[in-house]
Formats: sequence, C-alpha cells, structure tokens
Amino acid sequence: MDGADYGVLAPAWAGTAAASLSSDTAFVQAMLDVEAAWVQVQADASLCSAEDAQAVHSVASVERYDLALLASRTPDGANALIPLLGMMRELLARDGAPQTASSALHRGATSQDIIDSALMLVLSKTMAQTLADLRSAADGLARLAQAHLSTVCIARSLTQHALPTTFGWKAASWLSAIVDAEKQLDTASRQLRLQWGGAVGTLASLEQFLDGAGGTKASSQQLSSQLARVLGLQDPGTPWHTNRMPILQLGSALGAAIAALGTFGADVLTSSRPEIGELSEPRETGKGGSSAMPQKQNPVRSVLLRNAAFSAPGLLSTLFTAAGTAVDERPDGGWHAEWGALRELARLGAGAAFHAAFLANGLGVNLPAIARNLALGGDAVLSERLASVLAPLVDGGKAAIQKLVRRSLDEELSLHELLRSQIPADRLGDAELAELFDPAGYLGAADRFTTTVLADYSARKEQWQSQN
Amino acid sequence: MDGADYGVLAPAWAGTAAASLSSDTAFVQAMLDVEAAWVQVQADASLCSAEDAQAVHSVASVERYDLALLASRTPDGANALIPLLGMMRELLARDGAPQTASSALHRGATSQDIIDSALMLVLSKTMAQTLADLRSAADGLARLAQAHLSTVCIARSLTQHALPTTFGWKAASWLSAIVDAEKQLDTASRQLRLQWGGAVGTLASLEQFLDGAGGTKASSQQLSSQLARVLGLQDPGTPWHTNRMPILQLGSALGAAIAALGTFGADVLTSSRPEIGELSEPRETGKGGSSAMPQKQNPVRSVLLRNAAFSAPGLLSTLFTAAGTAVDERPDGGWHAEWGALRELARLGAGAAFHAAFLANGLGVNLPAIARNLALGGDAVLSERLASVLAPLVDGGKAAIQKLVRRSLDEELSLHELLRSQIPADRLGDAELAELFDPAGYLGAADRFTTTVLADYSARKEQWQSQN
Amino acid sequence: MDGADYGVLAPAWAGTAAASLSSDTAFVQAMLDVEAAWVQVQADASLCSAEDAQAVHSVASVERYDLALLASRTPDGANALIPLLGMMRELLARDGAPQTASSALHRGATSQDIIDSALMLVLSKTMAQTLADLRSAADGLARLAQAHLSTVCIARSLTQHALPTTFGWKAASWLSAIVDAEKQLDTASRQLRLQWGGAVGTLASLEQFLDGAGGTKASSQQLSSQLARVLGLQDPGTPWHTNRMPILQLGSALGAAIAALGTFGADVLTSSRPEIGELSEPRETGKGGSSAMPQKQNPVRSVLLRNAAFSAPGLLSTLFTAAGTAVDERPDGGWHAEWGALRELARLGAGAAFHAAFLANGLGVNLPAIARNLALGGDAVLSERLASVLAPLVDGGKAAIQKLVRRSLDEELSLHELLRSQIPADRLGDAELAELFDPAGYLGAADRFTTTVLADYSARKEQWQSQN
Amino acid sequence: MDGADYGVLAPAWAGTAAASLSSDTAFVQAMLDVEAAWVQVQADASLCSAEDAQAVHSVASVERYDLALLASRTPDGANALIPLLGMMRELLARDGAPQTASSALHRGATSQDIIDSALMLVLSKTMAQTLADLRSAADGLARLAQAHLSTVCIARSLTQHALPTTFGWKAASWLSAIVDAEKQLDTASRQLRLQWGGAVGTLASLEQFLDGAGGTKASSQQLSSQLARVLGLQDPGTPWHTNRMPILQLGSALGAAIAALGTFGADVLTSSRPEIGELSEPRETGKGGSSAMPQKQNPVRSVLLRNAAFSAPGLLSTLFTAAGTAVDERPDGGWHAEWGALRELARLGAGAAFHAAFLANGLGVNLPAIARNLALGGDAVLSERLASVLAPLVDGGKAAIQKLVRRSLDEELSLHELLRSQIPADRLGDAELAELFDPAGYLGAADRFTTTVLADYSARKEQWQSQN
Repeated sequence: MDGADYGVLAPAWAGTAAASLSSDTAFVQAMLDVEAAWVQVQADASLCSAEDAQAVHSVASVERYDLALLASRTPDGANALIPLLGMMRELLARDGAPQTASSALHRGATSQDIIDSALMLVLSKTMAQTLADLRSAADGLARLAQAHLSTVCIARSLTQHALPTTFGWKAASWLSAIVDAEKQLDTASRQLRLQWGGAVGTLASLEQFLDGAGGTKASSQQLSSQLARVLGLQDPGTPWHTNRMPILQLGSALGAAIAALGTFGADVLTSSRPEIGELSEPRETGKGGSSAMPQKQNPVRSVLLRNAAFSAPGLLSTLFTAAGTAVDERPDGGWHAEWGALRELARLGAGAAFHAAFLANGLGVNLPAIARNLALGGDAVLSERLASVLAPLVDGGKAAIQKLVRRSLDEELSLHELLRSQIPADRLGDAELAELFDPAGYLGAADRFTTTVLADYSARKEQWQSQN
Repeated sequence: MDGADYGVLAPAWAGTAAASLSSDTAFVQAMLDVEAAWVQVQADASLCSAEDAQAVHSVASVERYDLALLASRTPDGANALIPLLGMMRELLARDGAPQTASSALHRGATSQDIIDSALMLVLSKTMAQTLADLRSAADGLARLAQAHLSTVCIARSLTQHALPTTFGWKAASWLSAIVDAEKQLDTASRQLRLQWGGAVGTLASLEQFLDGAGGTKASSQQLSSQLARVLGLQDPGTPWHTNRMPILQLGSALGAAIAALGTFGADVLTSSRPEIGELSEPRETGKGGSSAMPQKQNPVRSVLLRNAAFSAPGLLSTLFTAAGTAVDERPDGGWHAEWGALRELARLGAGAAFHAAFLANGLGVNLPAIARNLALGGDAVLSERLASVLAPLVDGGKAAIQKLVRRSLDEELSLHELLRSQIPADRLGDAELAELFDPAGYLGAADRFTTTVLADYSARKEQWQSQN
Repeated sequence: MDGADYGVLAPAWAGTAAASLSSDTAFVQAMLDVEAAWVQVQADASLCSAEDAQAVHSVASVERYDLALLASRTPDGANALIPLLGMMRELLARDGAPQTASSALHRGATSQDIIDSALMLVLSKTMAQTLADLRSAADGLARLAQAHLSTVCIARSLTQHALPTTFGWKAASWLSAIVDAEKQLDTASRQLRLQWGGAVGTLASLEQFLDGAGGTKASSQQLSSQLARVLGLQDPGTPWHTNRMPILQLGSALGAAIAALGTFGADVLTSSRPEIGELSEPRETGKGGSSAMPQKQNPVRSVLLRNAAFSAPGLLSTLFTAAGTAVDERPDGGWHAEWGALRELARLGAGAAFHAAFLANGLGVNLPAIARNLALGGDAVLSERLASVLAPLVDGGKAAIQKLVRRSLDEELSLHELLRSQIPADRLGDAELAELFDPAGYLGAADRFTTTVLADYSARKEQWQSQN
Repeated sequence: MDGADYGVLAPAWAGTAAASLSSDTAFVQAMLDVEAAWVQVQADASLCSAEDAQAVHSVASVERYDLALLASRTPDGANALIPLLGMMRELLARDGAPQTASSALHRGATSQDIIDSALMLVLSKTMAQTLADLRSAADGLARLAQAHLSTVCIARSLTQHALPTTFGWKAASWLSAIVDAEKQLDTASRQLRLQWGGAVGTLASLEQFLDGAGGTKASSQQLSSQLARVLGLQDPGTPWHTNRMPILQLGSALGAAIAALGTFGADVLTSSRPEIGELSEPRETGKGGSSAMPQKQNPVRSVLLRNAAFSAPGLLSTLFTAAGTAVDERPDGGWHAEWGALRELARLGAGAAFHAAFLANGLGVNLPAIARNLALGGDAVLSERLASVLAPLVDGGKAAIQKLVRRSLDEELSLHELLRSQIPADRLGDAELAELFDPAGYLGAADRFTTTVLADYSARKEQWQSQN
C-alpha cells in the first residue's frame, strides 16, 4: 500500500479536471515553477548565468521527485518546501550543475514566498476551469430562463405552495446568484498575488546580494515585478506574509460560488423527488444508477452540489480563524492550516461548477408535472389575489373570503363556486371571475425580473467574452 | 426576571455604540421604519392618503411595543414580523386610524421583504460606525508606521527571532490588512440592498393592486426604487429571496475586518507579555485591572479583538451553509439562521473596530524593550547576512560560517570575534566587519514597503474623505 | 431605545422556557448565586458570620442591578463579574452591611471561578428543561413507531423512491438518534462542574486566608466540595481554567441533540410538502399562518428545528477553536468567545427540544398519502425483489428482468403483465406472482429493528424515571 | 502528472503512521475487507461455497485496483463503492471465478453499508495509533508533573504575570485535558459500529434470500452479528443510515483530543519564545531548521499541534451540519460530506498525538529561565498575598498596600522596603516579613491539584493496561 489519495472519498471533485490541477503533484510542480522562474528572472537580469537557469529548469519537473518521500519529510520543518529544496539541490549536484545554480536557487526567498505563490498558481489554473464551468452553467440557466418566461409553475415558501410564478424566473434566480458569484470569483482570480518578501518580509538578503552584485543591475522591486509577470500573478508591491486578506478574498469567492451552486442543486433535488417530478437530471449512461435497484435514477449531480455546499463552510471558517490569529512575521500554525483548506475549497468549487454546468445544460423540465403541481393546491393558491380583488364585492370583505377559502379546503368544495354564490353577477361577470382564477394572470413582475436578470447576464457575458 | 439580554456575555461589543444600534429594539424599529416608509411611498404616489401614512407613522415607534411579548410570539410564524404586524394593526385600531391605513400597511409585501430590508438598515448604521472606527484605527497605525520608519526591532517567524525589521513596517503590515478590509466593508456597505418581492418574489399582489388602482399612478418598479431611496438602500432591480449572495458579501466583509483586527490584537497580546514588553495598551482608569492583583494590567482591548476573531468564523460558516441550502422561493430554516449570525457578526465587527481604534491611537511603544529583544539573539540574528557576505572570505564558505554561528551559540562565544579570527584583516577591515553586525544595515526593503503601504493608505483616505 | 435583546431574531428559542432560563438576567442571577453560596459556605464553616452571609444574600438579587449599566462596564475588564463585584460592594455599603461581609465576598475567588460556575448553573436549568422536552419528544415518537409498526410506506434514498419500509421504522430511526442524544446530554448534565481555583488555579489566596484563620476550621478541599454541593454542581477535585474539555463535552452533547432533532425536522419538512403530504404538523390556532395567504399552513416547528440545526455547528466550532488555543493559566480571548457560543447552543437545544416535543406528540400521519406515494413508483419499487426471486425463472436471468423493469417504466406498461408473459405458469402460479408484488411482503427486518429501538427506549425510560 | 495526494499540504499528519492507515489506498482496502468478510460470513453459514469466499478474497486486495481510475468513476454514483463493485466483478470474471461468487458478493448490501463500515475500520486502526500516542504523551506529561512538583514558576492570566504556581501543576493541567480526551476517544473507539441495513435499512433483500435459501441456515440478525465480530466492530442491532449520532460521537472525541493537544502546543509555543525561554522542543537533527537562518530552531511540533487545532473545528462543524440535515433513508449530500471531514479529523488527531508524544517525552525545561521570569515581576506578583496578610498591620489596610504596590512599580522602589517602613517591627519581624516574599510559600493547593491529576492518571493507566 503506497498510501496515496486520489479523491475516492471526495465525489464532488474526483475525476474532474480540478482533481489533477490541484493535486499534490500539481502543487509540487507549482513550487518548482516558482523556483525555476525566479532563477530565470535572475538570469535575465544577469544576476546569474543562463546555464544556472537551465540547470534549475532541468530539475524543476515533478516527475523527478518521489512525492511520498517528500511528504514524509514535510513535518520536519512544518512545510514541504524545505525538503523539496534539499531534494532540488541533490538533483542539481547529481546533474553536475554549477555551484552557482545552487546559489541562485531560492536566493533571498523564504519558504512562505514559494508556498504562497505556488498555491496562487494552483488556484489560478483551478479557478480558470471553475470560471469556465460557472459560465457554462450560467449559459444553460439563461437559456432555461428565456425558454420558460411563460411557463407558469407553483412557487413555494417554507416548503408549502404559495402563489404562481414562472419557471423562467426560478431559473433566473439561480442565474442571478451564479452571476454574482462569477463576478466575485473573476475579480479574485485576477488579483492572485505573488508573495515575495524573504525570511521576514524585508527582502534583506536579496537586497544585500544586489548591493554586493553592484546594485546597478536590477532593484528588488523590478525583480519582484518581473517574477510576478513571468508567473502570471499580480505584484502587490509588498509581501503579505501576515496580512491574510488575499486568502480570505479567495476563500469567500470560492465559498460564494459553491453556495450559489448549492441553491441550484437543492432546488433540483427537491424538484426531482418522484412526487414532485418537475425537474430531472440529464440521463447519462452509467451515472446515477443504483447497484440494487434498476428503476432508481439518483440525482447524482445535485447530490454532489449539495455535498460541496455542506463541505465548504467549515473550511472557510478555518481560513478566517487562521487569518484572525496570525502573529509575528509568520504565523505559528494558522498559515499551515490554510493550505489544505484553501486547496479543498478550490477543488470543491471546481467540481461543483463542473457538475452544475452539465446539469444546467441538460436539465429536464417536465411540463406536465409542473402543471399538475400548480393545479394541486386548487384555487386556494390564488386566495391572496381573490381576497384582495373581491373583498369590496363580498359582505364581510377579506375576512369573509378567507373564511370561504378555509371552508373550501376543509370541505373540499370548489372555491370558485363558493365565491360565485356570494358575488352578484352584475358586480362581476362569470368571465371576469374565471379570469381571476387563472394563475397566468397573477404573475406580477416575474417577467420583468427575469428579463432584468437576463439583461445583466448578457452584459456580463459580453464583458467576459471581450476579456478573453 | 424579565429575561432580556444586554451584552453581559459579549464583552467584545457590549457598551459600544453598536450594542444599541443592533439591539432587538433597533431591529424592531427598523422593521417599523420599513413599513412606515412603504406607506409613505404609497401616499406620495397617491396610492393611499397622507392621513394613512401619518397613522402608520404614528404606530411606527418601537416604544409603543412590548418586545418581550413580541419575542414570545415570534416562533408562531417563525419570524417576528408576523406578530409585529398584528400588533401594528391593533395599535392602528386603538388610535382610531382609518381602515385604509391598515390596508396600505404592508401592502403587497411579505415578511421576508421587511425583515431582510430591516436587517440591511440595522447593518447600515452599525457598519457606518464600524467604518468610522476602522478608519480611526488605520489612522493611528499610519501614524505609528510613519513615526517608526527607522525603529529597528526583531522580526519573528514561528515564534522565533529571525532577522531585524522595523516597527514601522510591522505597523504598516497591520495597516495594510485593515485598509484591505476597510475597502471591502465600504463596498459592501454601499451595496446594502432593498428586498422587495412580495410573497414569492413576483410582486403579484402589488401589481394587482396597481392595476386595480388604474395602473397609471406608479409602476411597481418605480415604487420599489422610491422605497429604496427613502430607506437609503440600493435598488437591485429584482428581489433576492433565495439568492443569498448579498448576505455572503456582507458576512465576508465583516469577517475580513474582524480577522484584520484580530491579527493586530494577536501581535499586541504577544508584544505586551511582560517578558517581551515591546507594546502596551493605553492605560485607562478602571480598565484592565484585576480584582485580586493590583499590579496586573490586562491587555483587555486586545483580548476583545481576539475574542471577536475567534467568534466570527463559526458565524460566517452559518451564513454560507444557509445560503448554500436555500430552496424554493423562501428557504425553510436557513434564512432564519442568518439573522442572528449576521447581526452578531456586525456587532463583533463594530466592537472590534471600536476597541482597535482606541488601541491604535494610544498604543505604547517601549523602545528600550524593543532594543533589548533585538539584542537578545546577539549577532546570530544576522547570521543569514554574515553567511552570504562573508562566505567568499572564509575557508569552507557558507557552511563554515554556519558552523561558527552554531559554535557561538553553543559555547556562548562572540560570533564577531570568531569571525574576525577567521578572516584576514586585509580582506575585510574591522570597520567593515563591524558594520555587518549592525541590524540597522540589514533592513532590506522595509522602508520601501512601509512607504508603499502608507501611500496606498493616503490615497484611500483621500477617497473616503471626498466621499463624505 | 434601551437596546436590549429579547429573542426577536431567534425564533428557534424565543418565547420558550429556555429564553428566560438563559437570559443575561438569569446569568447575572447565577453569578450572584455563586457569590452568595460561597459566603454562605464560609459562614457555615465559621469563616465569616451568619450576618455577613445574610448581607451578601440581600444583595444577591438580580432585580437590584441595572443590567444595561453592567453590560456597558463589561468590556473594561473583558468580563461582567468585575463590574458586578463593584456594584455588589456598593450595595453592601449602601445597605450598611458590615465590612466583614465585603471581605468574605468573592474571598480567594477569581472572575473565571464565578463566570464558569454561573454558566454551569444556567446550563443546569436550561438542560433540565431540554431533557424533559427531549424525553417527551422521544415518547411521542415511540408511540408513533409502535402505532405504525405495520404501516407500509416508501423508503427514499438520495431523494428517490427505493423500496418499501414501514413508517414505524422511520419513526424509530428518529427515536434512536434522539435517545442516543438524550443519553449523551443526560451524562453531560450530570457532570456540570464547579470551577474553583482562585486567580491562577492554586487557591493560594484562600489557603493563605485559611492558614491565617487558624487552619483548623476547614480545608480548601472541603470548602470547594461544600460549595459544589450547595450549588448542585459536581466537584471535579481540581480547577479546570485552561482544560476546556468540560465545555467541549457540553457543546458536543448539545450539538448532537440539535442534530438529532434536525433530522426529524428535515423529514417532516420533506414529508409535509403538498405533493408528498405524508406528514403534517399539528394544526394550532395562530401558528404557521401566512399574513398574505390564508390557505398556507407553514411547517413552522420543523422550520425551527432546521434553523437550530443550521445555527449550531458554527457555534460548536467556536468552542473547539477556543479550547484548542487556550494558553497560560487563563486564555486570552478564547475563554471569552465561549460564553455566548455555549449559551446560544444551550438555547437552541432547549428551543429545538421544545418544538420537537410538540411536533412528535401531535404529528399528523396521512395514511392515504402514504399509500398513494407508495403506489406512485408502481411495481418498479419491488424490482430488486423481483429480479432476485424471478431470475432463475426467466431466460436471461436478472439482466433480462432489469430490462423488463426499464421497459415497463419507459413504455408505461404493467411490469406484472410483462413478467407474467415471460414466466411459465407452471413454474410460478398467479397467486405466487401476485404476492411478490405486495410491498408488505418485502419489509425485511423493519419490524425487528423497530422493536429493538423501542425496547432500548423502554429500558432507557425506566432508567430516567427511576432517577427522578 | 498522476495527480495524487501524499500529504504535502498536510504537515500535521504527513509522514506519520496515520497517513498510510487512512489513505485512499487504506480505505479501498477496507471496503474490500468488508465485502470479503461478508462473503466469508455467508460461506460459514453455508449460504455460499468456500470457493466463492476464496474467489472474492482473491480480488479483495487493493493492489489489484487502479485507484486513480476508481476515483475518476466515483462521481458517477456519488460514491466509490459502486465502481469498485463493478471492478471487483470484472476481476472475478477475469479470474474465472464461479458465477455464485459474484452473486454472493455484496449480497443484500447497499453502498452505505460498505462505505460506513469501511470508514469505521479505517478509524479503528487510525484511532488505535492515536490512543497509543496520546497515552505516551500523557506518560511524558505525568513524568514532568511529578518531576516538577516543586518547581516554582510564574502563572499567567490574559498573557500577564499573575501569581506563582508550579510547573508540575502546569504539566498536570495539560495532562488532565489529555486524559479526559483519551477516555472519550477510547470510549468512541470501542463503539465503532457495523453498518448493515441494505438498500433502505430493512435488509429486505437479504431476508428474501434467506427465505429462499430455506430460512433455516441463519437469521439476518445472526449474520450481521457475525460480520461485526469478524470485522472487529460493534453490532448495534439496527442500521444507522440516517441516525448519524455515531459519527458525531467520533468526531467530537477526535476534536476534543486535538483541542487538548492544541492547548499543550499553545503553551509550548509561548514558552519557547526566546524572551520567555522556559520550554524548548527536543532538538532533533534535521528538524525545525530554517533554510535561511542557521541559528533558528523552530518549535515545529507545537506549530503542528496548533495547525491541527485550527483545522479541526471547521471539519467538525461539517459533521454536525450533515447529521442535522440528514433526510429520508439516505441523506442527499450530507452523508457524502462526512467522509472526507471524518477521515481528515482522524488524521489530524493521529498526527497531533504523534507529535505530542514526541514533544511530551523530550520537552526541555529551562529552570534558569523559569526563575528569571518568576523574578521579573518582582515582589508585585505577591501583592495579592501581601495585601491580604498585611492589611491588618498597615494604616489604611488593603487600599494602602495596593497604593504601595503601585508606587513601587511606578517609582521602581523595593516593595519589601516600602512595607518594612510601614509596619512596626514588633508586629511583624523581618524574617516573617521576608517569608511573605517567598513565592514558594504562596502556592496554595498546587501540589494537591497536581497529585489529584496524577492519581487520576495512574488509575486510568492501570485501566487501559489491564484492557490490553
């Protein structure tokens, strides 16, 4: 038994692109990438030779490392960079690299610089995937909202039937949350910051080296900027070793995306209950089946969205606890608690977006079931409307009508007929009364709201399309 | 025993302005404000009479309600608005208000509209206070950072002495986190949104009424916008009953502010330990004393910051769980779990900002202690520098120097003398060697980083000053 | 506006007995009770006079204190006991109490002794109420389980219809979780511990006093034991200032109880959806109604159970964070974060138990709906059984049968007829085949499991009845 | 890049025994073990052949499976058992096993039976390791407590010096928390329960099979009991598919253990700060070093304990959320969220116990630093004692003495001399006065408390030794 993890206990993201983009393998590669880029930046500034950069580049390939061994050494210094650096130097020696390569390696840096920056790289790739899937999910929902602008369905509050609404507005409501979350995630993903500060966030060692090197080749500021550029990260201008706000921004954005998708999943789960049956997950070969019960088709994608929605909040709380207790120039345990929590949040976000995209673009909408459920509550679901419109026409007003509603429910009588018998025909004709019983006539601003969300979405979509 | 709470178990915010701004009393007043504003908006649009508005205004005063009684009725409908509405109608009747006032009251609204909007009003006031205090704290820290640009002190990583830094950069690091958090909180406080959707988010009842009223006086869109304007909230264009992203945005911003302040508090706690003694809380009459030990001066403000930092993450996780499991057109328990958690986060944020402002503007900086601690590690804290600069001058290079460092530590010998004995005087003069032992010469970019943070802060300060 | 809280934002416990048992008012009374009991214990040991004890007793009444003022002074020393003690001494002076009363007051104690012990007193009363309600809920569920031993209903997994089960076993499953939680809570409530250690957990001041008082009257050990006895708490033999395991035990037990009730609530919420309709909350006048929609009856009790289930986990995480970061002889912020979290957990537990008791003892079971839903999936819900029993009788075995199941679903054909056509009548008669389609014949060990749970419950009930 | 995880981001448990005991590899093996044991139990009851059992046993070896492939199929059914079962059947076919083996495999079981039971197996092994390490840590602390019964040191409250205590009592306080946690964990580990209920917790399929098999060979009850026995788990008598109390019990026990160790770590972190220096981690070759700073020795073990203490609470909150929202006969996402959270808690607990054992058994106690810090506060730390003993001898009593204390602090005068000048020598001799300034004379019940904890520990130790 080698003792590795593959996502067997993490159905929400196992098997998705995020799994490999955020694995330990990917993270170690990212640490190697940061170290290699840094030597390259030095070489470009003539602070070391191109040969040095090439030598470091040669050892910056995760395939050359035994990750199980690396992990086993991780507790020694409470982080993986320290043993990785040792292994890199061993490889350089084995490769016969010049001593100057080893000197240039990690020059002036501290393990937090590499680990934080590498995490940002991992997040960068994972979040790019997440954003693509979120947008695909949004697209699917926008199509649903558009297609069902006039699909009247029952709206529910505290699980009970309330009033009619449209399925378009329902889908638009999911869409609005996802677009909010997409914007927040996009912003966060554009602000992924390089960490570069040296042992205590002063870059003292680097500056000392630059002084010794003549001080004219490059400033630490230029080098940091250049490193950020090479890595595709933002240069925040200062290190942020104990200012963990960037981590909270990321975590909050990922948590929000997962929550937005969780709501979508929760509604699909409810709606795909056999008794309700308004929605169904796309049928796929080999998915959602039960080993024991062939007739059973589980709403697996939605279950995974809910899984993510349940798993994220605790992880997020870890990030906030760690940030709020950071001390000194490097936190004494809180920083270490961030890594796994942030990576897992990123994975859950990516997995949830992946499954949501699939779901949103293949969701089955069962119109007969929608109509059946709408009719289920009978005329009573329009009682609010009836009470308010008919109050002036009935002796006893609103209260009398509410009594009729209750009576119709208790005695299973037709509310329509009860009301007809109470309202003089000359005050309200049969056709006008009947019209009041048409749910499609009591949708209020559902259409306007849906259209507003769709317009916001279109504007946002143009924005992101123009960005790419 | 009346059974009320006053903050006796909540030292982090008890007794601050936030306590009364966010009390149940304040929240009920906010619900009354929303109801009254809505009738006023109707009156302004000639949808009811000025007399109706005046009548509702007369009952919209929290002093007229028995809040203990209101609370006891809260579980009946799982929210406080339902019984409050009943009590309002009773008062209207008792006041002899016209029946039309009662009809205009809450017209077309649902309890979620009132509760969500009232919470936003409470947050608006509480967050304004929080922002003012955060800015005051930032100001104090900026002054400290400026004043101590050249105060050399020891930097610590994983609790241990590492390298020299400046106290100015330390203060600037706290400042940078607080400014990040202030921006986020300011953004969130400017986006507090009106909730207005009626029973299921369609405004069906309101639109029905407007139709009945001729349909020409005002659109539901205009009325919502006007209501938002009157209440000082944003009009999001649609209701957000089950899109809880706005709540997450608020919670995340509050959590980030609390975390930023927590880091500041954590460092003050550490630094005010008697053995360290670099910082001390402002001495205040009657505060921080111990009933038993007169010599003891507790760092009470910092303890409260830490209290808040510990309390916030769990509350935030509740908000994310609730948001991620919202279903139907109104969530079945998650929405209810938000209220207390969000309010408590707002209180903790306000309390923490209040205490931090005090702390930042009166923090005692003990220069002798700073110097003593800096000297404590002796020359070894510069070993990184010595190793890198002197390696070319010593046989065996870096490794040899590290051995000397360890020997000096183990045998308590002077590292300076050990090195002198190894380096030929013609390769490095006494003065040059001595200079290498001056911590003030090994501060790297501390000054640049501090200045960068201060410049960012100044720019931000100008921005907020121009806004107010 | 006085700025107090009454539970307006806490529907899950507002208006229940727990609200007043755990209010700030109750907590301050508990602190007063601890102080008064301690002076009484001293008087009984002739360490002060009966008059002293009487004088302290006279000021130990919460009505004599302005709690808003007390709260406002709470941040000064980061806890409420310090200002309360000052106010007690003022009252003693105003009452003309002897100076010796003031000396005996709080003798040798520290604020943590009083606060922790007072919290235990508050929990003691609140948890007694919770246990009573939990047991009542259990009783109701046991009756349901017994009554519905043979009520066949559909079992669902991942929201989908799976196989038949009995409603008795469903109720027994809720019961089993509640009984587990009741045992844990009962154990925790029997282990509520006195905190008594003096400033740093050594009782040095008290021992000094006892030495001075001759050392023969009583030992600190005897006095602590006696104090525990008077207060109805356990004497743990040592103080537990930074060993917060007792707090975690309490929190975990409360959290478990809330979770057990949450599951019950979640199932009632699902089952009372109009489309499902198997269960309904007891109809009560004035509860669950909607202001706008008279026909709507909200499952309010279940919503409150879910509210509690969502609110508890974050609070519990605060307790664990605080416990895991406790330092020194008194924690620097974590302790302070415990108070509100633990009290809120206790309130939520009590509120949830109260509502669950009501729900369990009046739950409506809709047999026609249960039958309708069971029939909804048609014969397919028995496909597992059919496949396994009939495989030997059909060409192609299990796979062939599963194909028939799918065909019957897709083409809406009778599975019964499809199978009849495939199985020679001489191998399986009509009656035998029909029997296979009877869900009541495929309940497995549902009866045995229900009976097992009921027997466990009865044994447990006898235990608690014999204890009281 | 294969995309596996090895613990590179999890320093708290990477490289410990727990890492491999709880890996995906171990978990899959545990699932295979459950499936194989079940067929064996059937074979022993003559419900299948020994050859069938042997065939299943042959495929029940994790080495035969591609875990990355398994993980990639995990989302299809939202759990790993479904694809694993498919792979097992493929292997059986490839091995030429009889069809009856495939039929016996997983007979009557559901994926939750296998997954829950397999998790219990993984926890069983991981917790056994954790208990061993916790006991070793306890042993180390007991030795420290015993050895330092008379080592006087300063006690701190809210970070400030308070009164003297003993280091023995400090160590005993850590010990008391760890023993509490050990008991709870031991209880939990003895109650790890088999899950066995079939598709919906009725064992219907199994009972059907047993009926078909003649019904005389074995009852489902006997088979379940036997399976539990073979796997070393408890037979709870009923399935617990949606009663998640067992999971909460486990999670709470693990969380408590991690918190107890966190407090120990927090104190070591504080005490090993260079300015305090009372404690130091065992020096180990290759551990705690800094890549940049040779003089730096990081308290790595304590950092890892703190890491675990920060990471656990959020995971625990996930378990409580999942438990409190479980619905139907199998939860729709909450169950899935449990797996990773529970496994990670088990890993963190095991990792923390491992590092704590090492730390407790090699902790460096620096007596000179302890003495230095004790002296740091001067005589003022005894002011409580002085005030109480000398009050009768000084004009103005306690208040006058507190004034002298403050004066001595402010003017840096000797409190001893100030008091001598105020107290007539005939009322208190020099020797008696001097004695009052001896911290060793003001330790109260520290010794008794330490001894009490040690006695409790010894009793507990005997208990566990007799059990093994």
